[in-house]
Amino acid sequence: MLKEFKRTVYCGHISEEHLGKKVVLNGWVHRVRNHGGVVFIDLRDREGIVQVVVEEQKNPEAYEIADRLRSEYVIGVVGTVRRRPPGTENPNLKTGYYEVEAEKIAVFNTSDVLPFPVDEETPVSEEVKLRYRYLDLRRESMKENLLFRHKVYQRVRRFFDEKGFIEIETPFLTKSTPEGARDFIVPSRLHPGKFYALPQSPQLFKQILMVAGFDRYFQIVKCLRDEDLRADRQPEFTQIDFEMSFVEEEDVMQVVEELVCDLFENLLGIKLKRPFDRLSYEEAMEKYGSDKPDRRFDLNLVELSDIFKNTEFKVFRSVLEDGGVIKAINFKSSDLTRSQIDELVNYVQTLGAKGLAWIKVEADRLNSPIVKFFSQQEIEGLRQRLNLEPKDVVFFSAGKREEVYRILGNLRLHIAKKYNLINNSGFDVFWVVDFPLLEWDEEEKRFVSVHHPFTAPKEGHEELIDKALKEENLDEKKRIISQIRSRAYDLVINGYEIGGGSIRIHSLELQDKIFKLLGISELEAQEKFGFLLNALRYGAPPHGGFAFGLDRLVALMRGLDSIRDVIAFPKTQKGICLLTGAPDYVSPKQLKEVHIKVLE
Amino acid sequence: MLKEFKRTVYCGHISEEHLGKKVVLNGWVHRVRNHGGVVFIDLRDREGIVQVVVEEQKNPEAYEIADRLRSEYVIGVVGTVRRRPPGTENPNLKTGYYEVEAEKIAVFNTSDVLPFPVDEETPVSEEVKLRYRYLDLRRESMKENLLFRHKVYQRVRRFFDEKGFIEIETPFLTKSTPEGARDFIVPSRLHPGKFYALPQSPQLFKQILMVAGFDRYFQIVKCLRDEDLRADRQPEFTQIDFEMSFVEEEDVMQVVEELVCDLFENLLGIKLKRPFDRLSYEEAMEKYGSDKPDRRFDLNLVELSDIFKNTEFKVFRSVLEDGGVIKAINFKSSDLTRSQIDELVNYVQTLGAKGLAWIKVEADRLNSPIVKFFSQQEIEGLRQRLNLEPKDVVFFSAGKREEVYRILGNLRLHIAKKYNLINNSGFDVFWVVDFPLLEWDEEEKRFVSVHHPFTAPKEGHEELIDKALKEENLDEKKRIISQIRSRAYDLVINGYEIGGGSIRIHSLELQDKIFKLLGISELEAQEKFGFLLNALRYGAPPHGGFAFGLDRLVALMRGLDSIRDVIAFPKTQKGICLLTGAPDYVSPKQLKEVHIKVLE
Repeated sequence: MLKEFKRTVYCGHISEEHLGKKVVLNGWVHRVRNHGGVVFIDLRDREGIVQVVVEEQKNPEAYEIADRLRSEYVIGVVGTVRRRPPGTENPNLKTGYYEVEAEKIAVFNTSDVLPFPVDEETPVSEEVKLRYRYLDLRRESMKENLLFRHKVYQRVRRFFDEKGFIEIETPFLTKSTPEGARDFIVPSRLHPGKFYALPQSPQLFKQILMVAGFDRYFQIVKCLRDEDLRADRQPEFTQIDFEMSFVEEEDVMQVVEELVCDLFENLLGIKLKRPFDRLSYEEAMEKYGSDKPDRRFDLNLVELSDIFKNTEFKVFRSVLEDGGVIKAINFKSSDLTRSQIDELVNYVQTLGAKGLAWIKVEADRLNSPIVKFFSQQEIEGLRQRLNLEPKDVVFFSAGKREEVYRILGNLRLHIAKKYNLINNSGFDVFWVVDFPLLEWDEEEKRFVSVHHPFTAPKEGHEELIDKALKEENLDEKKRIISQIRSRAYDLVINGYEIGGGSIRIHSLELQDKIFKLLGISELEAQEKFGFLLNALRYGAPPHGGFAFGLDRLVALMRGLDSIRDVIAFPKTQKGICLLTGAPDYVSPKQLKEVHIKVLE
Repeated sequence: MLKEFKRTVYCGHISEEHLGKKVVLNGWVHRVRNHGGVVFIDLRDREGIVQVVVEEQKNPEAYEIADRLRSEYVIGVVGTVRRRPPGTENPNLKTGYYEVEAEKIAVFNTSDVLPFPVDEETPVSEEVKLRYRYLDLRRESMKENLLFRHKVYQRVRRFFDEKGFIEIETPFLTKSTPEGARDFIVPSRLHPGKFYALPQSPQLFKQILMVAGFDRYFQIVKCLRDEDLRADRQPEFTQIDFEMSFVEEEDVMQVVEELVCDLFENLLGIKLKRPFDRLSYEEAMEKYGSDKPDRRFDLNLVELSDIFKNTEFKVFRSVLEDGGVIKAINFKSSDLTRSQIDELVNYVQTLGAKGLAWIKVEADRLNSPIVKFFSQQEIEGLRQRLNLEPKDVVFFSAGKREEVYRILGNLRLHIAKKYNLINNSGFDVFWVVDFPLLEWDEEEKRFVSVHHPFTAPKEGHEELIDKALKEENLDEKKRIISQIRSRAYDLVINGYEIGGGSIRIHSLELQDKIFKLLGISELEAQEKFGFLLNALRYGAPPHGGFAFGLDRLVALMRGLDSIRDVIAFPKTQKGICLLTGAPDYVSPKQLKEVHIKVLE
């Protein structure tokens, strides 16, 4: 039956060239209405919508079928393309100047009434959308998102292929990878009590591939992390992953810049300027209180410690005496009301800050609960340093440096979103470099890698590592280690860390030292990544690489806030797939087969 | 330090154009030897090997370093390309007419003595190879295999992209897919007692994508099945997966043929003739005793039941009375010895056959334990039907039809391999079609899908389905169901099922009927694939698709027997990754977090 109704052209492609020609369309009834003896069908397929007209007089048989059509019925239409009568054109529609006069219609399938219409207007809850994802995906915007994502895949792979990178698949049933997050584990049936881990990234495998001599590897690959799902995190996400041998930072960063420019130019028509801006980690923290700052608005952090070095104000003084810092941001000419200020005070309290000192500059005075404690000199210092003008509102944070960064960095973002300070036109693309290699983890009471344990330290910093290893005194050790910088580089776009990478350690000796600094015993290291350590014994080349978060990159390029809109079948914040109902209970037989039982 | 040693050309690319030019090489010391004051280094990288010469006289510094080099050291070389002295050329090497005179050498990394040399000659056990996969992958042949696989990926995706297919990722943490095999399950941390299943295939999701209106989908995707690993099966394997809407068998099969021809022509330079041969399931079983026959040799099954319809030979008679069949294969002019025959008898016993009747044709007589039971007429019949000639050896199988297929089908393959009957030149590519929709499962005592429950029955066979549903008598029901054919099609190359597909069911009513025939209750159906059933209510288009086994396809194209040779990090038959040691034990904390304990 399909034969004579085999599509000859997509609805969305009907154009001048088809005028007067017979066509066969396949698609969904988007809308249908009967104007006394004439049925008008908006027929929809992947490529768009075209109007189909069925006249009772001319085609009684087709008319009879058309008259019984309902929304989302699946039909085939044989008809002839003609120009719409003057005055009935629809300039908003790509095919709006044409219509197809139907001679034959076949109904391939019917449809129940949809839980929500296929349009962009009707507000539908996220939950319902995800439960009926196949209907949500019929919407123009969702289709465009996934079509765009398809184009990204193809360009990315062509880019790497042309540059001599080899696509190699890495395993899914593997061993814990040390990305810091929790592993998803998979019980083994053949090996009672043992488990596979799903890969958090192909990190170790791509390094192994460099040791194997593949020189340039890439892969677009799913990664899985059992993390506490913050807003807009997915337990499974897609990574553009690559690695190169015999390279330094500049070589890898150049490949990244070329790829990003290729994508933006060819998929968005936007020429990004190269080389990308570079920000040191320190500069980023000092100015924005974040290592992935959103630079599309001001409200920068300003250092004030020097101004208060002799202050009488107890709070500030004790902070400085404890080696802390005092910083502030000036919300210029915002003229915030007291209640607006209070809202911001409450916000920082949710971040765990005791309070938030503030000054509102008024024509005649500084309105503030704390200025009374400041000396004239200090106030003068503030006026100049912060360039105070009427209607400015200044917020202070005093405490440990990292704390001040965290509080003001978050406050800065909070204000920018709340008061629409962000310039959404265009993209701010830049590098953050010179990260610390290690940082002290207060909870674990040990040093941890800022990136991962295979990240190489800056050349020349090996001495610091040796010194730190010898140092007994913890504070002194911290001081030394804080000076060690890594060969890592993160790419930031509009305040999102879109990817990161580093030059890796290829010397077994150096790798051992790093594990020592991390307090990882040789036994533990052997157990966890012995295979990499062994590989380093047999001629490992210098190498480095990078990994992009593809979901976020695509969302950013499409101007979308949520990565769910660029993932065909996303999960909720609780990790549930509302379409399939996963995760779900399994049979006792299944559990027994893999030698586990569920804890009561 | 790398700077001045940054590669300018791959070792394997040194050619006429570089003569007299300064080059920088990075690579591994493949071989090194010192001939009195001159060190010769075979330097290897991804692209090949070139000879590097270091002369003590000319470059004492470089010489001193070169003299201390050992196999698999990683080095950089600055030198000048020159022609090898006459008589010292190596025509077996792409670069064999040139050598690089080294001026500077840098050692990037050293290497312990390898557990086995990087060459094709040295025999190394599979186990050692897999444990040191990074060394095994340095071998020319393995590199070529993965490079070839890389090319397959790129061509496949370009092919689908150009045909308007959209690449869409389907989830890994999902719900059980009904492919018949066991699921790998993943305990959920956020949902105690619940589990995700890893996908056995994207089957349901790609059908959902058709309901969503994407019209043409494709993906190269990992699939995971916890099967009892037969030789050369992997728990995770890669599939080339696609689906199309508004199509019939011919449309899908055409896409498959075009893709296969594209790959063979562009990657192997082989033009396959189209359309591919087609074999009905029945024909395949009758002639070869297999639904994925190897047709590269004869030894076909010959039907003999009619010849023995009135036989006095009890064994045969009782078989025929029980509705069984008698078939034989004739190993022409093999002149097998008695002990060779006995080996084959033993083989079929391993298949569970009681015995194997045979006849050896000798110049003057038929040497056989059973001919004495045959009538002259029956012997005459055999002579003609099997075209008996001296030195022929005939093997009989009598029993249930399926049993005879299984026994002789396997014996046929066994003989072919043992006696090298297989013509290994070229590829035998063909379709098997007209499969039964369902078959009776003796163990489960119910009907099961030959492919999967979403496979559509042949048009016109709906009546048979209704009849079968009404039929009370099981034997009669079996008879009716055995007549129902499906709209499935398998692609076979050189005796391997390289892929399969079908037109799917898009009618909810029909899908319900199939579940009934399969003895799947509505409740169970709702639980397992309710989301697909619901999707069928809302305008599901006619659709169908196909999936290739990429690993096997690549292995076949490379002329390899084992798919392990085309997988970068394969697992053993017991599902172990010898490189990483996965699966492995996990911490009690990890188990507790996902609310499970291991059974003692």
